[in-house]
Amino acid sequence: MTSFVQQDATLQDATGASALQARREADDPRSPVARFGARNPLKLDAGVELSHLQIAYQTYGEPNAARSNAILVCHALTGDQHAASLNPVTGKPGWWETLVGPGKPIDTERFYVICANVLGGCMGSTGPASTNPLTGQPYGLDMPVVTIRDMVNAQAMLLDHLGIDKLLCVAGGSMGGMQVLQWAASYPERVFSALPIATGARHSAQNIAFHEVGRQAVMADPDWRGGRYLADGVTPHRGLAVARMAAHITYMSDQSLHNKFGRRLQNREMPTFGFDADFQVESYLRHQGESFVQRFDPNSYLYVTRAMDYFDLAADHGGVLANAFRGSKTRFCVVSFTSDWLFPTEDSRAIVHALNASGANVSFTEIDSDKGHDAFLLHERELTAITRGFLDSAARAFGLPATRQA
Amino acid sequence: MTSFVQQDATLQDATGASALQARREADDPRSPVARFGARNPLKLDAGVELSHLQIAYQTYGEPNAARSNAILVCHALTGDQHAASLNPVTGKPGWWETLVGPGKPIDTERFYVICANVLGGCMGSTGPASTNPLTGQPYGLDMPVVTIRDMVNAQAMLLDHLGIDKLLCVAGGSMGGMQVLQWAASYPERVFSALPIATGARHSAQNIAFHEVGRQAVMADPDWRGGRYLADGVTPHRGLAVARMAAHITYMSDQSLHNKFGRRLQNREMPTFGFDADFQVESYLRHQGESFVQRFDPNSYLYVTRAMDYFDLAADHGGVLANAFRGSKTRFCVVSFTSDWLFPTEDSRAIVHALNASGANVSFTEIDSDKGHDAFLLHERELTAITRGFLDSAARAFGLPATRQA
Repeated sequence: MTSFVQQDATLQDATGASALQARREADDPRSPVARFGARNPLKLDAGVELSHLQIAYQTYGEPNAARSNAILVCHALTGDQHAASLNPVTGKPGWWETLVGPGKPIDTERFYVICANVLGGCMGSTGPASTNPLTGQPYGLDMPVVTIRDMVNAQAMLLDHLGIDKLLCVAGGSMGGMQVLQWAASYPERVFSALPIATGARHSAQNIAFHEVGRQAVMADPDWRGGRYLADGVTPHRGLAVARMAAHITYMSDQSLHNKFGRRLQNREMPTFGFDADFQVESYLRHQGESFVQRFDPNSYLYVTRAMDYFDLAADHGGVLANAFRGSKTRFCVVSFTSDWLFPTEDSRAIVHALNASGANVSFTEIDSDKGHDAFLLHERELTAITRGFLDSAARAFGLPATRQA
Repeated sequence: MTSFVQQDATLQDATGASALQARREADDPRSPVARFGARNPLKLDAGVELSHLQIAYQTYGEPNAARSNAILVCHALTGDQHAASLNPVTGKPGWWETLVGPGKPIDTERFYVICANVLGGCMGSTGPASTNPLTGQPYGLDMPVVTIRDMVNAQAMLLDHLGIDKLLCVAGGSMGGMQVLQWAASYPERVFSALPIATGARHSAQNIAFHEVGRQAVMADPDWRGGRYLADGVTPHRGLAVARMAAHITYMSDQSLHNKFGRRLQNREMPTFGFDADFQVESYLRHQGESFVQRFDPNSYLYVTRAMDYFDLAADHGGVLANAFRGSKTRFCVVSFTSDWLFPTEDSRAIVHALNASGANVSFTEIDSDKGHDAFLLHERELTAITRGFLDSAARAFGLPATRQA
């Protein structure tokens, strides 16, 4: 059991370091960046154009001669482009090294894997911490609100930039899975196979509610300053930490919290009868909140949660989800986890029913796990096996050699 | 569908009114108050004595000659003594008028119903907003942390004050149910029957986690001022509103949020692509947060959530829950709701198993409801029927006439 040092009653004061960090990352990320300048704007769902778009990304492996071995990996709410490389901000391994790497199911010795920071993010792609070319100041709330479709359209521009016409697969969990579904709906001819995991075709009322709590926590922090905190050299770190703490509970299951912490006290035999982090679960949550504020821009948290809230693929297709996939030749593999209450299996079933109704090629597995929503990021033997099998089959059907060496 | 007017991006600024209100309520509640002075202190679980204890309460109906028709109703986290009377702060009906009143299952024409504001509360019982007799200032964090057992011991002092030796029944939901269980464990000879609803014999890791988020939201608000906000004439209303919003989600079910709001927009055809309350569920939550801060003291929120966190009846009895009830002659009726994920049926089953193991008299019903944890406060036909039947049977077994008129 990890023990956390921080035991004060309140979240620690951070310095202005994270604000500066966000600013630096936004304008000079430690990743390759595709820059689209003034003459190639992205038309957003909000009805405005975004020029000087930049998309930061990482690639793993090499494209083959036909450029037919590309897999796009889409990240979740607080993820980034470092799916399988050391994260330069946290110093931690990539967020999907359970699945992506040499010899792994998303095999970087066989496939050319691309992962981009989403539009609205804070790791080098255009987001609210980026410099607004019109003012020379950070966008803040002057950044237009973006949608999952806008994120996907920006990724399509990146693929054009990289010379990838068609993806062997697009894969992702949670908000990454929303992007997978949007890719399949918007660009069916560019997506040979799709792997949406632990996701839904629309955000539920409960999920919107949790996001709203997080946004209100950020905006209630006086240091948010109407979104202009970067210009003032401060950051609403207390509010963002509270937002992260609330969200983190939803990523785990009741069972996994019980297994991990139960009611165990933090380095004590007896309760302190105070408001310190008496229980291990409190200390863990505070640690989650405090480490998050070191790596994430508060305004980005508003924008990216908002994009998820707005996601409703059926609504974009006359209220009928199957219409989003009519005539699609994409092969789908849908995966959910039994203990995921943020995106319960019911949400995946709705996707599968729509795909069946549209006549698409689809397989579906509900994986038995007590790890909750976060299971897609963890070592889950069955997820590994499913991903490997699905990609191997898709690669052969797409005309790739059976293995890299073959 | 109720429509809420407030649509700004951030929670409205409250005036200092709620701080003053809390102070006034604490020292001069609009309820009868039992005052225990300096010579009759309450010994707390924290190991200290609390003198000048005061307990504010309401009664409904009249005691019979034998004083054998008393029912103690215990309130939940943010409830108060106004179970069946107009709440003087909110102007709303009592919180349990679904069950308590003339001719209702907890029939005030037949029973003498007592409901007290809990120790640590903010409606007239001693709590952190009360005046510390040693300083003449509000206690703030100088108030000792209290437990569910402390609350129950204070209620026992109130019953002595009212001349009630033995209760026909003690009843309550959620934290009220915890008090019911503690009453049965601490004072088995004073409790003829017990009705714990939607509760648990201990607070789960997930529930502690949600409480910790709420407390951090309050303590992250600069206007909390280390708990000394009342002396400064301010109140951490933004933090408390965020805490309430997060908690409120846990009181409802995914299904009830979906049924009530779905993804419907607030008075609009199209999303605004901004951070106003676009969705009805957002507007509803903001309203919940804003109205809560008008009636509840932020420090009380810390104290009462902490009491729930510390509740673990088995731990107080050598780790064996059944030991809490050995030899008990109390009749128990345990009730849970299918969609309650805060206190799931599993928690009630653990109580029932322990009662069975201890040889106690117990009935158990899981009521089919999609209303989540809040179901115990709502019109639930089956809850009404069960409560009526259980109390009627208990009253006859306790020697009361079959009806008031009989």
